[in-house]
Amino acid sequence: MPDHSRPARAVLGQNQYGKAENRVVRITRDGATHHIKDLNVSVSLSGDMDDVHLSGSNANVLPTDTTKNTVYAFAKEHGIASAEQFGIHLARHFVTSQPAIHRARIRIEEYSWERVAHGNEGAHSFVRKGQETRLAQIMYDGSAWEVVSGLKDLTVMNSTDSEFWGYVKDKYTTLPEAHDRILATEVSARWRFNWTDDAREMPDWEASYGQVKQHLLRAFAETYSLSLQQTLYQMGVRIIDHADEIDEVRFSLPNKHHFLVDLAPFGLKNDNEVYLAADRPYGLIEATVLRDGCEAKIPADLTNL
Amino acid sequence: MPDHSRPARAVLGQNQYGKAENRVVRITRDGATHHIKDLNVSVSLSGDMDDVHLSGSNANVLPTDTTKNTVYAFAKEHGIASAEQFGIHLARHFVTSQPAIHRARIRIEEYSWERVAHGNEGAHSFVRKGQETRLAQIMYDGSAWEVVSGLKDLTVMNSTDSEFWGYVKDKYTTLPEAHDRILATEVSARWRFNWTDDAREMPDWEASYGQVKQHLLRAFAETYSLSLQQTLYQMGVRIIDHADEIDEVRFSLPNKHHFLVDLAPFGLKNDNEVYLAADRPYGLIEATVLRDGCEAKIPADLTNL
Amino acid sequence: MPDHSRPARAVLGQNQYGKAENRVVRITRDGATHHIKDLNVSVSLSGDMDDVHLSGSNANVLPTDTTKNTVYAFAKEHGIASAEQFGIHLARHFVTSQPAIHRARIRIEEYSWERVAHGNEGAHSFVRKGQETRLAQIMYDGSAWEVVSGLKDLTVMNSTDSEFWGYVKDKYTTLPEAHDRILATEVSARWRFNWTDDAREMPDWEASYGQVKQHLLRAFAETYSLSLQQTLYQMGVRIIDHADEIDEVRFSLPNKHHFLVDLAPFGLKNDNEVYLAADRPYGLIEATVLRDGCEAKIPADLTNL
Amino acid sequence: MPDHSRPARAVLGQNQYGKAENRVVRITRDGATHHIKDLNVSVSLSGDMDDVHLSGSNANVLPTDTTKNTVYAFAKEHGIASAEQFGIHLARHFVTSQPAIHRARIRIEEYSWERVAHGNEGAHSFVRKGQETRLAQIMYDGSAWEVVSGLKDLTVMNSTDSEFWGYVKDKYTTLPEAHDRILATEVSARWRFNWTDDAREMPDWEASYGQVKQHLLRAFAETYSLSLQQTLYQMGVRIIDHADEIDEVRFSLPNKHHFLVDLAPFGLKNDNEVYLAADRPYGLIEATVLRDGCEAKIPADLTNL
Repeated sequence: MPDHSRPARAVLGQNQYGKAENRVVRITRDGATHHIKDLNVSVSLSGDMDDVHLSGSNANVLPTDTTKNTVYAFAKEHGIASAEQFGIHLARHFVTSQPAIHRARIRIEEYSWERVAHGNEGAHSFVRKGQETRLAQIMYDGSAWEVVSGLKDLTVMNSTDSEFWGYVKDKYTTLPEAHDRILATEVSARWRFNWTDDAREMPDWEASYGQVKQHLLRAFAETYSLSLQQTLYQMGVRIIDHADEIDEVRFSLPNKHHFLVDLAPFGLKNDNEVYLAADRPYGLIEATVLRDGCEAKIPADLTNL
Repeated sequence: MPDHSRPARAVLGQNQYGKAENRVVRITRDGATHHIKDLNVSVSLSGDMDDVHLSGSNANVLPTDTTKNTVYAFAKEHGIASAEQFGIHLARHFVTSQPAIHRARIRIEEYSWERVAHGNEGAHSFVRKGQETRLAQIMYDGSAWEVVSGLKDLTVMNSTDSEFWGYVKDKYTTLPEAHDRILATEVSARWRFNWTDDAREMPDWEASYGQVKQHLLRAFAETYSLSLQQTLYQMGVRIIDHADEIDEVRFSLPNKHHFLVDLAPFGLKNDNEVYLAADRPYGLIEATVLRDGCEAKIPADLTNL
Repeated sequence: MPDHSRPARAVLGQNQYGKAENRVVRITRDGATHHIKDLNVSVSLSGDMDDVHLSGSNANVLPTDTTKNTVYAFAKEHGIASAEQFGIHLARHFVTSQPAIHRARIRIEEYSWERVAHGNEGAHSFVRKGQETRLAQIMYDGSAWEVVSGLKDLTVMNSTDSEFWGYVKDKYTTLPEAHDRILATEVSARWRFNWTDDAREMPDWEASYGQVKQHLLRAFAETYSLSLQQTLYQMGVRIIDHADEIDEVRFSLPNKHHFLVDLAPFGLKNDNEVYLAADRPYGLIEATVLRDGCEAKIPADLTNL
Repeated sequence: MPDHSRPARAVLGQNQYGKAENRVVRITRDGATHHIKDLNVSVSLSGDMDDVHLSGSNANVLPTDTTKNTVYAFAKEHGIASAEQFGIHLARHFVTSQPAIHRARIRIEEYSWERVAHGNEGAHSFVRKGQETRLAQIMYDGSAWEVVSGLKDLTVMNSTDSEFWGYVKDKYTTLPEAHDRILATEVSARWRFNWTDDAREMPDWEASYGQVKQHLLRAFAETYSLSLQQTLYQMGVRIIDHADEIDEVRFSLPNKHHFLVDLAPFGLKNDNEVYLAADRPYGLIEATVLRDGCEAKIPADLTNL
């Protein structure tokens, strides 16, 4: 039996609930030309929820099933101009229509499609692009907004212009220095907008996303890299420098190691030609780049935006 | 205890072994312009292997570790002009150099990369395309070749021009007929070349792949569909019709259901605008399309090419 | 344009269709004690299906949605005594009730649960066991049955009593011989019953499964191994030897490499204590063990049973 | 060009780096009886790392490769008594041996194995248990420790004794009330120890884990549930109540919906017997339970412990 020398009484802490991973596809018909938005929407609500935890009373609980229905109804009522705009509609609804709900967080994954070129009239054939997954998170507490956008699974590689040397060597260090290596990573990034107030004009969410992705890619490509940290930082600087609407960027960059294969036992010289792409373990480099004077709000661990 | 009324003696049947999933990245440098091939290569060998099963004698066993080394060495020695050509080099080597090995099967997944446009000189920055995974399987028994190429994870959608009605109704049928639905599938396809003989000129593997993919996409897009089976067949016919080098195509097409959401309870009309993209269960349509007079050789179950 | 020197006409080959991955959970109440069966059921039908491919006529097509409904209805009507018995009910139904359907194949994954010990009355709390996934495949063509059972994802390890030496060495061989290594694999196995005829008594499917799993595990544990092939064969022999109801076993055994880490650079001796568990590549050993005089029917490539 | 009305200068924020997912297997030999620890260890370090981000200078960077080597060397030098103890050794080493490193975080996944009963002498055959994955996170900043343990992928089900009714109904609510439903979830939990100081005696990490798991399971089984939130809270209370060494528990509980299938169209009554196990969407219930007077430190989003 426990000794109970310390207070044993348990109390409820932070809590949230909702329906996760509502898969909604919205078709907009412009004559024979169709447009598509393909989202995975997760709703998470918090507020006066002590009773449901303590006694099981659901008197303050809007069912998660209802939040699912709302996602589909809003896809019709408001359309989906962008993931961010759609999330704003949803978050505002839950907080303003339910007295017991004081905060709503909407997380969205978006999958891109491109048109299939073909000989028929009409444009309603699509192939999934399959590159990165676009992300958005919208939080609203009834007064201020926090909008974070992002992406994951964008895999990039420089086949040269990367070095790694001059590092600390302790008794467990065996790594040889490298003066020409492959640098590859699978970019996971989140960026926070400084739009927080209904009174201000919103950013153009769609245009902003496209520009940030291009900045990421170009900074990765154009940085002669002495460490993945340096490349990460350049990616962040470039976004802060070019995107006035963004105050903070967080990256999680696995170093996808490509090991130069030793072909000497077979009498062959490997002049940076043949690499083994390794799975695990991998380096993991994570950092935030901020606009000077701004406070960091994106959590350090990104995997679960 | 077993009754042993039937003969109890066990005998060895078909067997094969090798090293699976060797991840090889090959960079080819053309001045400051680099080219990349990114493969996942699996080797499977068979031959006089009774002893290793019966007694554990490895006297006929080329270690799987050696087959891995060979993959990397051949990436240097032969380069990787195409997955198919690379597999042919490997298969020929194992069968002709090892007396105990009578058949080699090489399976390859290929991941595509595209260049990142940027302002620096040189072209050595890449982003993974992320669309379909390209597949190749090469088998050689010392006399004849069988080359099967394919792809998986190519997700396509027509947002209209699909119907489903006039089907059998039994006592368990509740599905209403549909006269305008979304048709979406994740194409998994394999196609067999009629090149089997070293004396004949090989197809242009790279050009052939690109053309087949386009035929698939266009046939999907251009077919007004009364069933996914009909669409599948049109995809196959188009390939057989246009690609003289191919005698057989096998498809496995999950019907990725998009259910029209009932918005009537919310006083909304859903005019083919808002869909729920379902995960499981899914229809699964599988069929072979053959050149007339040719024999089918691709197994009915494709998942594991 | 294609040259058409070879016949271009396409014809339809083997085809099948159905609803895949119907997740059905069946609770049986024995007073306050509940029993649970948790299955993932895939139906695949074939028969007179030319029209639906060639013209889109669904006149012979029982909708995949109906096959889903049938799975759930049969879970009520027949119960689920075992995955095999349930599949037999389903396959018989489709072939005997639909004139156009000549073959049915039912594939089932089964997930095991165990009871949670607790202080309340009643026994209706379960925790998923999480070890292997049980498999069953039932095929019926109106006259004969083929029942294959199996399992996947059963990971086993011997921390000693494994060697590997005496193998072929060619110019690409660098592997040192091993006289004490870890042997680990993730067992994927399928076994075929010799029950094919309604007139004969069926095996006790549940008892048979439990015994085969124990034979597998014990044979793995008790075999002093000179190669994974030898261990595989002993596993098969033991099943054929003890299970009269089974005529054929097919294994697919990845060699989950555990590499002894070189600690010498740190002044440490690694006396078979510290291993790196590698992901890819992996050896892959596949073979069939047959009852003498029986014909092999399980396909060589198992992944997709 | 950006307008730069807001300060454009970018600055570096929180950052961390290390080697993730080092797979280490440690065998301990007690005569012919072997013991096994199977871990996946991720190292993350932070400290004076401005230079590597700003200029690419690695002068303060202990390579991630070295952190990997340290994991394997420590598995020999210190053994692995428990994941928590192993992480404490590692974290202390990095912070105390490297002047530029001010914080170390070690995350560990642990996979359980059980012995295979067999007829040979010796005990060195194992089968992976396959139930939950055990988790541990150790953080050290040179003065205080924070140890969080946990588990994921523990799937549980009550086949009765669960209701859901009396909830808020708005215009988007269609869910019927339920007075006897299946309650199933896949438990993801983290719990924080109040041990923070080297001067105090450590908890028995292995014993504590086993007890917490049992408390979780029993509380789930014994709670007659009016909402998943209520069940969650009871699980937390029970741990706080029985485990003096723990001050905080965080749960993330997906509501794995099991829908009662409507069999009425087939003339069948479904008396809580046949369920469809759904994948997405799912309810997601998350909450912290704290010892009264203690501060919450586990982040609200658990997926990435």
